[in-house]
Amino acid sequence: MPSETKKPRPIWQDDPGGPVKVIDQRRLPHERVEAELRTVDDAIYAIQTLMVRGAPLIGVTAAYGLVLAAAAAAENGGGRDYIEAEAARLKAARPTAVNLAWAVDRTLGDVLSETDPGRRVARARESASALAEEEAANCRSIGLHGLPIIEALSRSKRGQTVNVLTHCNAGWLACVEYGTATAPIYAAFDRGIDLHVWVDETRPLNQGARLTAWELAEVGVPHTVITDNAGGHLMQHGRVDLVIVGSDRTTATGDVANKIGTYLKALAAKDNGVPFYVALPSSTFDWNLRDGVADIPIEERDPDEVRWVQGWDGERPVRVRICPEKSPAANFAFDVTPAHLVTGLITERGVCRATAADIRRLFPDKTKTAC
Amino acid sequence: MPSETKKPRPIWQDDPGGPVKVIDQRRLPHERVEAELRTVDDAIYAIQTLMVRGAPLIGVTAAYGLVLAAAAAAENGGGRDYIEAEAARLKAARPTAVNLAWAVDRTLGDVLSETDPGRRVARARESASALAEEEAANCRSIGLHGLPIIEALSRSKRGQTVNVLTHCNAGWLACVEYGTATAPIYAAFDRGIDLHVWVDETRPLNQGARLTAWELAEVGVPHTVITDNAGGHLMQHGRVDLVIVGSDRTTATGDVANKIGTYLKALAAKDNGVPFYVALPSSTFDWNLRDGVADIPIEERDPDEVRWVQGWDGERPVRVRICPEKSPAANFAFDVTPAHLVTGLITERGVCRATAADIRRLFPDKTKTAC
Repeated sequence: MPSETKKPRPIWQDDPGGPVKVIDQRRLPHERVEAELRTVDDAIYAIQTLMVRGAPLIGVTAAYGLVLAAAAAAENGGGRDYIEAEAARLKAARPTAVNLAWAVDRTLGDVLSETDPGRRVARARESASALAEEEAANCRSIGLHGLPIIEALSRSKRGQTVNVLTHCNAGWLACVEYGTATAPIYAAFDRGIDLHVWVDETRPLNQGARLTAWELAEVGVPHTVITDNAGGHLMQHGRVDLVIVGSDRTTATGDVANKIGTYLKALAAKDNGVPFYVALPSSTFDWNLRDGVADIPIEERDPDEVRWVQGWDGERPVRVRICPEKSPAANFAFDVTPAHLVTGLITERGVCRATAADIRRLFPDKTKTAC
Repeated sequence: MPSETKKPRPIWQDDPGGPVKVIDQRRLPHERVEAELRTVDDAIYAIQTLMVRGAPLIGVTAAYGLVLAAAAAAENGGGRDYIEAEAARLKAARPTAVNLAWAVDRTLGDVLSETDPGRRVARARESASALAEEEAANCRSIGLHGLPIIEALSRSKRGQTVNVLTHCNAGWLACVEYGTATAPIYAAFDRGIDLHVWVDETRPLNQGARLTAWELAEVGVPHTVITDNAGGHLMQHGRVDLVIVGSDRTTATGDVANKIGTYLKALAAKDNGVPFYVALPSSTFDWNLRDGVADIPIEERDPDEVRWVQGWDGERPVRVRICPEKSPAANFAFDVTPAHLVTGLITERGVCRATAADIRRLFPDKTKTAC
């Protein structure tokens, strides 16, 4: 794939004036299909339908969406108002991921710092590309900061297999490169540490079974797919040494909004003395929030994502209904894990406890005004 | 269906010498298919493949398996040894459900109390039928003992909807009649209490989405299917007033082995002050066990039940694979909820706290020797 680093990426642009390309993650692991985004509508569609997903990638896709908006503006004679309206539409594509808004605002600021339409397009492209590189660098740093946690577990187990449980997909598919939750796993695997990953399937959309398992299999990391119900049992029996998950939105006090079901794993980890870490780029912090359960809006998605399961019948993708035709369903996309259940946050600047004070110490520049 | 009470049942015998009939629960909710059990092998197959499931129904099916064994013995000239060997095979069909062994031992005792082959068949039939009637009566009692819990919640909410969450299927499909976890729900619904049931889909085999939703829809009880991941979020936001689940095996100290994932819901209930009740016939007590997590063997089933999901494509049942072709999976069927997370046990004799002392008070005849 055309990336300077030769590492796989889920989003790229083959040529500066051409379409933005993404891997259509709805088709994985059964088919690797590339999709082309040519308009802001395409970008919004990709974000809303989970063709692209994961906090960092959603942000980068929205930033590239603004590149497409700036290009359209240059063509149609659209000005500042037009671009701002398109930015607002991009920000509204999904409500929970805070760095969607952050990425759009940041790119929009760069774009509007130019007045010439052509310069705006170039500036948007630079801004989106810089964002992608920063996200990749952040994930690399998260991996290096998280690595000592796995190394220490490996030492305390005298080299026996370290069992890591993860929920959903916070891998490179979600994050431009390396991933967040997976970054320490990849870093440890690269150093030859004996590890094994329990992969929560992550209903309703099975990002764990489909995407995390696929990513890990591509690299050769030993892993086992389990139902979302199984993690508590494994922890009760000493078969999980560490939980690492990602975050879609993190409060200044360390509460974490992540894929629905994360909270249940955090409760089980606490009950069994298993360390529970959240790996996140600081762009997922919402510095204005202090009470995650009360204040983070939780996206409700189409109930049919619960009522139907997408899979592969051996030859083609097929959707099957798993409940009675008339039974209604509800589909909450995220839940909030309160900070007191979180052992630590692994960020691009280092690891800290999930407390307002420790977060402030690591991010004094970000929290000065908000806390 | 041919039952004196005119309530639906999942197992019956149309005529005394004929085959035992069951609803093939693997085909629900999409098709209602009846299967005929003519041999002990048929009964074992039905139990192992989850054509029949649920602690009470497994026991009753095994008891009817002994009817078939006695009939075969009468035909082949098989004696006590033959029937005992068939009983041992039936007991081994599934390892976690304690009342499978209990039901087989009880029926076997009755059968072997006769020496004439023909009388053995008749005695087996009487014994199996009596067991089925007792299980139905137990479930009726569980419903009546659990009802005041829901009535009290309804009163404290001034008649507003009482939201009950349940995991897996502990309904009449699992239990001959009424069900265990569903018995108080049906009793409250019959009395006009405004209630709504959150139905955990219960991966990997989706007994919640398939069977509990189907049962509730048949009777008209308002319900909503959710993923197994969603319950914690709902409890955090005050949208669950009560959790009721069943039990496959209960220690004398109140630890509960139930469908995998139950433990996670119990943790969330505790964390949010939601009452967590387990409804069970006392046949699921294993009076010899005191530490459920350490001592209850947890069945591991075929990993393909995790890797593939069975559903309905609109026209027919279809299995779809949800993970990469080469990714391995693990499939633990149950987990153990420690007694300290259980608010109370709803039994056919009444409600008690999940402590050895309270259980002993309710079952002095059963626990005298074991505790």
